[in-house]
Amino acid sequence: MMTKEELLEMLERMRAGEIAPSQVVEKLSNLPYEDIGFAKIDHHRTLRLGLPEVIYSAGKTADQVSEIFFRMAASGADVMATRADEEAFAAVKARLPQAAYHRAARMITLRQRAQEAPLGSLAVLAAGTSDLPVAEEAAIAAECMGAAVLRIYDVGVAGLHRLLAQREAMQQADVVIVCAGMEGALPSVVGGMVAAPVIAVPTSVGYGAAFGGLAALLGMLNSCSPNITVANIDNGFGAAYVAAMILRRIRMRLTA
Amino acid sequence: MMTKEELLEMLERMRAGEIAPSQVVEKLSNLPYEDIGFAKIDHHRTLRLGLPEVIYSAGKTADQVSEIFFRMAASGADVMATRADEEAFAAVKARLPQAAYHRAARMITLRQRAQEAPLGSLAVLAAGTSDLPVAEEAAIAAECMGAAVLRIYDVGVAGLHRLLAQREAMQQADVVIVCAGMEGALPSVVGGMVAAPVIAVPTSVGYGAAFGGLAALLGMLNSCSPNITVANIDNGFGAAYVAAMILRRIRMRLTA
Amino acid sequence: MMTKEELLEMLERMRAGEIAPSQVVEKLSNLPYEDIGFAKIDHHRTLRLGLPEVIYSAGKTADQVSEIFFRMAASGADVMATRADEEAFAAVKARLPQAAYHRAARMITLRQRAQEAPLGSLAVLAAGTSDLPVAEEAAIAAECMGAAVLRIYDVGVAGLHRLLAQREAMQQADVVIVCAGMEGALPSVVGGMVAAPVIAVPTSVGYGAAFGGLAALLGMLNSCSPNITVANIDNGFGAAYVAAMILRRIRMRLTA
Amino acid sequence: MMTKEELLEMLERMRAGEIAPSQVVEKLSNLPYEDIGFAKIDHHRTLRLGLPEVIYSAGKTADQVSEIFFRMAASGADVMATRADEEAFAAVKARLPQAAYHRAARMITLRQRAQEAPLGSLAVLAAGTSDLPVAEEAAIAAECMGAAVLRIYDVGVAGLHRLLAQREAMQQADVVIVCAGMEGALPSVVGGMVAAPVIAVPTSVGYGAAFGGLAALLGMLNSCSPNITVANIDNGFGAAYVAAMILRRIRMRLTA
Amino acid sequence: MMTKEELLEMLERMRAGEIAPSQVVEKLSNLPYEDIGFAKIDHHRTLRLGLPEVIYSAGKTADQVSEIFFRMAASGADVMATRADEEAFAAVKARLPQAAYHRAARMITLRQRAQEAPLGSLAVLAAGTSDLPVAEEAAIAAECMGAAVLRIYDVGVAGLHRLLAQREAMQQADVVIVCAGMEGALPSVVGGMVAAPVIAVPTSVGYGAAFGGLAALLGMLNSCSPNITVANIDNGFGAAYVAAMILRRIRMRLTA
Amino acid sequence: MMTKEELLEMLERMRAGEIAPSQVVEKLSNLPYEDIGFAKIDHHRTLRLGLPEVIYSAGKTADQVSEIFFRMAASGADVMATRADEEAFAAVKARLPQAAYHRAARMITLRQRAQEAPLGSLAVLAAGTSDLPVAEEAAIAAECMGAAVLRIYDVGVAGLHRLLAQREAMQQADVVIVCAGMEGALPSVVGGMVAAPVIAVPTSVGYGAAFGGLAALLGMLNSCSPNITVANIDNGFGAAYVAAMILRRIRMRLTA
Amino acid sequence: MMTKEELLEMLERMRAGEIAPSQVVEKLSNLPYEDIGFAKIDHHRTLRLGLPEVIYSAGKTADQVSEIFFRMAASGADVMATRADEEAFAAVKARLPQAAYHRAARMITLRQRAQEAPLGSLAVLAAGTSDLPVAEEAAIAAECMGAAVLRIYDVGVAGLHRLLAQREAMQQADVVIVCAGMEGALPSVVGGMVAAPVIAVPTSVGYGAAFGGLAALLGMLNSCSPNITVANIDNGFGAAYVAAMILRRIRMRLTA
Amino acid sequence: MMTKEELLEMLERMRAGEIAPSQVVEKLSNLPYEDIGFAKIDHHRTLRLGLPEVIYSAGKTADQVSEIFFRMAASGADVMATRADEEAFAAVKARLPQAAYHRAARMITLRQRAQEAPLGSLAVLAAGTSDLPVAEEAAIAAECMGAAVLRIYDVGVAGLHRLLAQREAMQQADVVIVCAGMEGALPSVVGGMVAAPVIAVPTSVGYGAAFGGLAALLGMLNSCSPNITVANIDNGFGAAYVAAMILRRIRMRLTA
Repeated sequence: MMTKEELLEMLERMRAGEIAPSQVVEKLSNLPYEDIGFAKIDHHRTLRLGLPEVIYSAGKTADQVSEIFFRMAASGADVMATRADEEAFAAVKARLPQAAYHRAARMITLRQRAQEAPLGSLAVLAAGTSDLPVAEEAAIAAECMGAAVLRIYDVGVAGLHRLLAQREAMQQADVVIVCAGMEGALPSVVGGMVAAPVIAVPTSVGYGAAFGGLAALLGMLNSCSPNITVANIDNGFGAAYVAAMILRRIRMRLTA
Repeated sequence: MMTKEELLEMLERMRAGEIAPSQVVEKLSNLPYEDIGFAKIDHHRTLRLGLPEVIYSAGKTADQVSEIFFRMAASGADVMATRADEEAFAAVKARLPQAAYHRAARMITLRQRAQEAPLGSLAVLAAGTSDLPVAEEAAIAAECMGAAVLRIYDVGVAGLHRLLAQREAMQQADVVIVCAGMEGALPSVVGGMVAAPVIAVPTSVGYGAAFGGLAALLGMLNSCSPNITVANIDNGFGAAYVAAMILRRIRMRLTA
Repeated sequence: MMTKEELLEMLERMRAGEIAPSQVVEKLSNLPYEDIGFAKIDHHRTLRLGLPEVIYSAGKTADQVSEIFFRMAASGADVMATRADEEAFAAVKARLPQAAYHRAARMITLRQRAQEAPLGSLAVLAAGTSDLPVAEEAAIAAECMGAAVLRIYDVGVAGLHRLLAQREAMQQADVVIVCAGMEGALPSVVGGMVAAPVIAVPTSVGYGAAFGGLAALLGMLNSCSPNITVANIDNGFGAAYVAAMILRRIRMRLTA
Repeated sequence: MMTKEELLEMLERMRAGEIAPSQVVEKLSNLPYEDIGFAKIDHHRTLRLGLPEVIYSAGKTADQVSEIFFRMAASGADVMATRADEEAFAAVKARLPQAAYHRAARMITLRQRAQEAPLGSLAVLAAGTSDLPVAEEAAIAAECMGAAVLRIYDVGVAGLHRLLAQREAMQQADVVIVCAGMEGALPSVVGGMVAAPVIAVPTSVGYGAAFGGLAALLGMLNSCSPNITVANIDNGFGAAYVAAMILRRIRMRLTA
Repeated sequence: MMTKEELLEMLERMRAGEIAPSQVVEKLSNLPYEDIGFAKIDHHRTLRLGLPEVIYSAGKTADQVSEIFFRMAASGADVMATRADEEAFAAVKARLPQAAYHRAARMITLRQRAQEAPLGSLAVLAAGTSDLPVAEEAAIAAECMGAAVLRIYDVGVAGLHRLLAQREAMQQADVVIVCAGMEGALPSVVGGMVAAPVIAVPTSVGYGAAFGGLAALLGMLNSCSPNITVANIDNGFGAAYVAAMILRRIRMRLTA
Repeated sequence: MMTKEELLEMLERMRAGEIAPSQVVEKLSNLPYEDIGFAKIDHHRTLRLGLPEVIYSAGKTADQVSEIFFRMAASGADVMATRADEEAFAAVKARLPQAAYHRAARMITLRQRAQEAPLGSLAVLAAGTSDLPVAEEAAIAAECMGAAVLRIYDVGVAGLHRLLAQREAMQQADVVIVCAGMEGALPSVVGGMVAAPVIAVPTSVGYGAAFGGLAALLGMLNSCSPNITVANIDNGFGAAYVAAMILRRIRMRLTA
Repeated sequence: MMTKEELLEMLERMRAGEIAPSQVVEKLSNLPYEDIGFAKIDHHRTLRLGLPEVIYSAGKTADQVSEIFFRMAASGADVMATRADEEAFAAVKARLPQAAYHRAARMITLRQRAQEAPLGSLAVLAAGTSDLPVAEEAAIAAECMGAAVLRIYDVGVAGLHRLLAQREAMQQADVVIVCAGMEGALPSVVGGMVAAPVIAVPTSVGYGAAFGGLAALLGMLNSCSPNITVANIDNGFGAAYVAAMILRRIRMRLTA
Repeated sequence: MMTKEELLEMLERMRAGEIAPSQVVEKLSNLPYEDIGFAKIDHHRTLRLGLPEVIYSAGKTADQVSEIFFRMAASGADVMATRADEEAFAAVKARLPQAAYHRAARMITLRQRAQEAPLGSLAVLAAGTSDLPVAEEAAIAAECMGAAVLRIYDVGVAGLHRLLAQREAMQQADVVIVCAGMEGALPSVVGGMVAAPVIAVPTSVGYGAAFGGLAALLGMLNSCSPNITVANIDNGFGAAYVAAMILRRIRMRLTA
């Protein structure tokens, strides 16, 4: 790696006649190009964007989660751990008492940075109560990334009146996340009711021919509502991340 | 095969002492069982039920369709041919001028028997215009089997108000058939709006991850509405057949 | 939300000249439509239909099942819980001593309402003894919803004589439910023997290329008997629900 | 259906004492709710949003496309037809000479409304030249909906330098659409280079184990870049629609 | 059910003039036909064929296996239980001390009938040591059904010389069973070396893209050797059963 | 390659003292082993077994089929071509006028060898008329290989009485081939009615979720009848080949 | 883009005091990094490696193939087009008379560069004659890239002696490519016979459950021979490319 | 089996006139050919190639692993056990104290033979930390087989700069192994950066639509980089084995 300082020093030495221009060219040509070009990228992306650090806890021991969490928190960043059980939380809390646990979302969060005004408005919908873990993962993660979140739960398409009763509320949102398992029909119905981008999250809720979320995934990919894109099965965090990206774009333009 | 007459004759001979009872027992024991038991079944099922004869025309030449159609019509039964093109119809019409062609349904029908009062009420819904061939196959077939059919088309879930506008109409029906491709969400929504059995027919409408109707099929099998069962992909005729069975049961009880 | 009383009051004020008709129109137009239109739907569907409340217990703790069960029972409704183990039953029974457990069906039921005469006749068939949990779920649920149920078990197609011996019995039924795993051939054979709608329930019984019920599911969807529709894998309850819907339709017409 | 005029008239009659308030309440309660509530929704969504009308031409004859196109154009809206061949264009052009054909995108467009300033910036990437039809469908559709589109084509991940050379350009975009077939790896790489939402469009490009776009679809759903959501296989139009939704949200806030 | 005795009695009464022949005909016509026709079939098939009774133990408790085993043994038949663990064997042995356990095959057997001379010759091959449980299930079951079994194990195609060394031995067999997991190539190679029917049994041995035996199953179905048919994944018993059927046919003809 | 003559000559030379025994050992050790061991195998298998030569015509031109057919016929063997159209037959017949075409089976056959007494008895069943091409391929091929074939067609499980009427006939057969598409249930039912090995052939007949024969294939692999093995989809020839193998084994023992 | 010359000039100007070192640093930091780092990569990879240019002709018109071919040939490179039909060849030959067509491989080649000594030895095996197009694509492509190719065709595992006869020949090869469809067993057998890397190419040869090459693909991925890796279905060119890579590595070391 | 000594003795007896040459020919012709031809192969392949013996420990008890390990080590060979847990290691270490455990790789190794100079250079890449078990299995196994291994970990495509920083290092390698789960995009990117054969290993890392490594597997098979072949899911050992084969070929030629 060559820092800006080292580069400057080399150029000064060349100007001083200590090394020839051709030597500098040679040296620069053989440098890993990213030594220069990637200076900005070297700042870790999430830090640069002001987003929290994230740990995917599935398959990690409580100690591992705790250790990574602690290390990330040391930088002053907000930190969140997804798919974390209570044992992992206990291990984190032992070192970082201000960390919080969100049981329904299976998440640990630590807010350290000054909170800005909300980014914009996100509605998170869940078709049934079994979809709540995924929906809450989306909601908590989005809040942690600065979004104002409106939760609209238990509005499956078989009981349409409950969904219709929330129509005006959801039409206010800049982005809508819809979590549904089984046949995954909710995003199509919601997509027809709002004029905002809808991020559909298939959940692994269901049995038999639900095939672990495959039925919902295929349903959402084939939605007859055109304003829908799809995240991976059970990927509430990913949906929240994209929603936050969209909201940031809005604020970026507002403040530009 | 042993007819009732032959059986009677044998018993008379036994009464006359010409053959011994044990001989009769022996003979009856060794008969192919169906000689006795299946007398009722020997009457072809569709004839016995008063249902039309049906020809599945896909993969048959116009001449083959025409030939089978003609033979079936000879018995005086109503006849219908599904998946039939205009060429097949021309071949049928040449021999049976009173046959009718239903272009949207790709069906040929011939009504020969006195029409009874309608069996009961069936609503046939289609999500989009591309689902019409399947929906019309269901509607025409059901009418041919005696149902009064209410068509409710182009009521996909992305434009919910059109569907809601038909709520009262569809709530009158004894049975509801719902045809939908793509994500196949319509049956779930309809299922929540009616208190009748819903027969869902996935169609092969769609592209990409629709996989020829698989997405809609899985969606319907996993419906969160409990009053739904599912027919094979594009099987409008099968749905109509089951609907007619249900309607017949109602009338059977009414007239019992 | 606007209650009938509020609406009446508003109209009275208009008649009194306190507000103009156009103001009323404006107000009504902007109301969430469901405030008015969904009055009937606000009555929970199952209550309105006189059907029992249902709890899907899989993935719920004994305490959760017990709590929901108790709350539902408080309304005076019949209640049933599917996929419930004995621990859940113990928790329910502690609060509702009159609740009953059906081990083979893995169901808890509580009958509180006056029992009406049976809705009509339902035959529930199971191909093998391994299919019994699904068949019993169908049978118990259907009985709980008012059907008279005839159980015909262990009549797999490899031993045809046992099935044929039940032919007349099953031909009496208004609706037939057929549960089968492995190759799922039983509905096709039964479908050819009865003149009633057949609801096929694939079970996850089998191994190897049974793929958790997929083989049976595909077999049933492709049945050569036209009077068959299909429920989700292992979904005995869903089949019973549709059967009950059909039987209700029959009685509804009879008493109309 | 009850119009505003009819409603007004009824209220006037009530004020005149011709009918009682309770009668009005009764009548309103029994109205299909959408007669009142859906007035706003009755305006077709695309018109209301100022978006063009769209025709999916696959499976339609040139005459059908032309007929629908003409009817839609009559309302003064912008119109576009996707998956349209040259024969369809000829049929459209015969009636609407100002219609344009975009060969690479297989689209027909007609711009009739005054063009507003671009909505914001969208980058459309394509991995290979075979992905161009899908990418162009996205680009043309997005332009037709008001976006300023930057095309970055032939930047597959096997030749990374071509992609890296476009880094700064694509980092300007508010939204990024990435079209790729085969292994569908491009969105993951692009996702790591931009701080904007990325809409991944798997294409059916490839052979063998590409399985008509399935490999690319699965790859994109499982992307290790968190800022990615996925559209259906070959669904360039859908991606453009969602991108336009996002851009509209930005402008909506800017002008609010 | 009507026994032969009851039938005889009825006929005697007719001869005595107590009942008319037409009454007998009526009665016989309405009998479930199988009461007469299936007398032979009523003898349980396995008993009739002299084959052992079989219990599939997977999913059954040790007590259930023991109970069924005991009941079957009471008839004097040979009995075998597949997929049985040692606990089940202990339970069986407590009641039937002469029962034997075959650990590698996971089978319990009880031989009670006089052993006939072997039916003929069966070769059972296994590709690897992990395929032994399936191969031993086939071998033990076939022996229990009367076959002389030659075991040829650990002859996977990657070490061809071990297989070639057994060529002459396997060419003596009347039937060959080949068990293989992973790519399932062994039956194709063996098929080319023998002039006997080969029954291929895919096993669930393997990992990753073996997909629980699917790779081996597809490989065997597509074998380039024409003398191969395929059993279900891990179905050693089924293969043995078919092999025994073939061997019985040979002896049947020899002794005819 | 070393012929027997060359080997003999070498040994004679050793005996004559021209070469040393150790040289012979060395030479033999380094020979490709198959030079000695495979002499018997070098006789083409089908010729050695007295089976006809077979050409799989799909994907071959009429000229190619004709050329291969002619070359094979030159050896005096019986020859058959499967999946052959009339054009291919015309090309064959031009050179071999005694060749015969079997339209339903899509096969060309040429019998040149003296016909032996039939090998034994094979029953070929087909569920529906659409399964006939596969069933006829099996029947014609088996006849060509020496079997006496009993055809039992159009005996699908939805019309059980037609199948039951053939029970005694099919119980005579040494081997049974059952061809069925759609749900593929026929082999399970037949398997329960006969005490012979059943070879199930799934056909690609069906539509929608039949998935080109996959539904039938899975159904047959999971049959509850234990005497069933399965051939590839539409592989009538393969089933006939295995059946012939079984029948040959019977005769081999009879004549041993 | 900044060339070495421009960089040198800038540095000279800095040395001359015309611009400050900090300006140079700034300029370099903001350069697209690849302007410097990718100089070597800018030489098209295939040219740099001395490999031919390649055109995948499927889905391209004869004119398009011809045009791209001509353009590539202009650089003096060797050029090859895969999946090319005779019409494409005619179009190419019209402009480049020295181009050659390889019918079995469906390839057009043009050799313009001086031929080096062969890279090393590659054996290309094909299981059946239907696999030849893929095998020839591999062979011709590998020859075009400098390999000495030994073709060993029609050595399917059902006729093992033909394969064994080629054992010594194939053991000489540095790399082995094995093309097989149907069950794809050949690579496993070959893998056990050679001590070289084996590249397995599944072909789409087969029918029914071959599923377009999926059965062969899964078989090869699960091979019990450890020296096997797998290319995409029908991807003869890709296998040749990797083989050439391996051979180049050998020569690279030899000449290093 | 006939040993060289027995063969020599037979030939001496022939020379002595005790047996005739024709008797020798007869005897040799009837020998299992491999008795002679396979002498070289009878040396176990891994021993012959100087490769370590390998035990796949999954599904084996600690005692079984220990027993096999001990037996293999007795021959003086290097031994390695893959997928081995610490319990298995403890059992091995009790008998072979010099055995080593590699926790990340889940491997036990025992080096007994004199270590030769490294075979050549292998780079092993892993996309994420979850892919390390597979990558380490590849790395440790390759080292055990004599390769010099360069580990490049945590270089997923979403953080391209980390990968680019390793470009020159990886370009030195003779072979590259790339392990990646989720979308499996890393091999495509790496393939474009090196001029060496790339062996892609899909891992089962991921969730939802990753389907246990299927998404990564399909992605790698469809890579747009032509220098890639693919191993089975999680098969780090297999990739190392092929890499070692390639490196041996290089050294073989160097020392030839």
